[in-house]
Amino acid sequence: MTIAILGGTGPQGRGLALRFARAGVPVTLGSRDGGRAEQAAAELQGQLEGGAARIAGRDIRGAVAAADEMVILAVPASAHDATLESIRDLLEGKVLIDIVVPLAEGDPKAVAMPEAGSATEAAQALLGERIPVVGALHNVSATVLNDLEHRINCDVLVCGNDLAAKEKVMALIEKLDVRAYNCGPAVNARCIEAITPILIRLNISRKVPFTHAGIRIWAPDA
Amino acid sequence: MTIAILGGTGPQGRGLALRFARAGVPVTLGSRDGGRAEQAAAELQGQLEGGAARIAGRDIRGAVAAADEMVILAVPASAHDATLESIRDLLEGKVLIDIVVPLAEGDPKAVAMPEAGSATEAAQALLGERIPVVGALHNVSATVLNDLEHRINCDVLVCGNDLAAKEKVMALIEKLDVRAYNCGPAVNARCIEAITPILIRLNISRKVPFTHAGIRIWAPDA
Repeated sequence: MTIAILGGTGPQGRGLALRFARAGVPVTLGSRDGGRAEQAAAELQGQLEGGAARIAGRDIRGAVAAADEMVILAVPASAHDATLESIRDLLEGKVLIDIVVPLAEGDPKAVAMPEAGSATEAAQALLGERIPVVGALHNVSATVLNDLEHRINCDVLVCGNDLAAKEKVMALIEKLDVRAYNCGPAVNARCIEAITPILIRLNISRKVPFTHAGIRIWAPDA
Repeated sequence: MTIAILGGTGPQGRGLALRFARAGVPVTLGSRDGGRAEQAAAELQGQLEGGAARIAGRDIRGAVAAADEMVILAVPASAHDATLESIRDLLEGKVLIDIVVPLAEGDPKAVAMPEAGSATEAAQALLGERIPVVGALHNVSATVLNDLEHRINCDVLVCGNDLAAKEKVMALIEKLDVRAYNCGPAVNARCIEAITPILIRLNISRKVPFTHAGIRIWAPDA
């Protein structure tokens, strides 16, 4: 079951491709420049051992066409809407996983939400209710994703209006040996996306003794 | 250094009073009915050992007057603005700690933010810039607070526009043996307050094997 990662040559996309391929999920990276995507795919494949699934590279539309069911949108916030417009006709029957965080231009410690309220809601409005959009993976540091020596030890907060689509995405994410939580409808992306600039602020702060922070749900008895 | 807790007879207020008094911080509970506050104070004091600081009870204005520096607003969201209006003239020189989460009427799994964006921002707008407002303690379960057998094992996300006030509040909160993080300006309360209904959703969910969840910042090397 091949998944597509659009913006797959960026740090978040590369880290996800490595993690999913290692977990046995074939990945097609999508980039505006298909050649660059192919090159990145070959590089990433070289970092993995023989048993990993295949990482391929295509242009954006080619990657969406290659995906069986799920397409991860990992482009810069500035390319969010235009990318969706360019692939909308290919998404019929698929689930769009939106991991984009609308960070403020020039200030990664702040969020500049679109008029719809959040990137996930903007995607859902743009694609219409027939294409389910699931927000997820916003708060996982790219550095953590790319560091294959360590587990992803934070949790993944998942939201969206279509329960079946969310459950499919949660099952996919849990292949990465990480706990995914159903955090309600798409409107909750206003909160979940906005956690990322707070984590970035902590990472930058000289008063906090760590970087690449994540978020976890704490179970009192744990 | 006495602190006031307004809405101090509610579950959040009682739990905070117990924890602060046990940590040596004198508390005056404030309630619309001063007699009820006195009664709750006596009950709570009875739950604590001899070394604890004193818990007193007063009406709302009496409690604010009794506070040296910090006033915690823990009233129901519906009483948020009216309570602030009624004490505004007494807050000069003090810090208001706003822990109110504007949960949607009839649906604790959703948030209904005020026009200002969040309760913390609404409080800051109402009080004016001379009275610093710090948002904090939104995501700590009342059950966890009242269970003195166990540590509060989640983190506290603190926000506000006045750094000195935030640092004062963080130092106060850390007396509860909990980690407080400076999470930026008051606008970030839109995210932090909205985490609570997500936690409530997880607590209610039959698919999540725990209740009274909290939020934690995960340090990758921890």
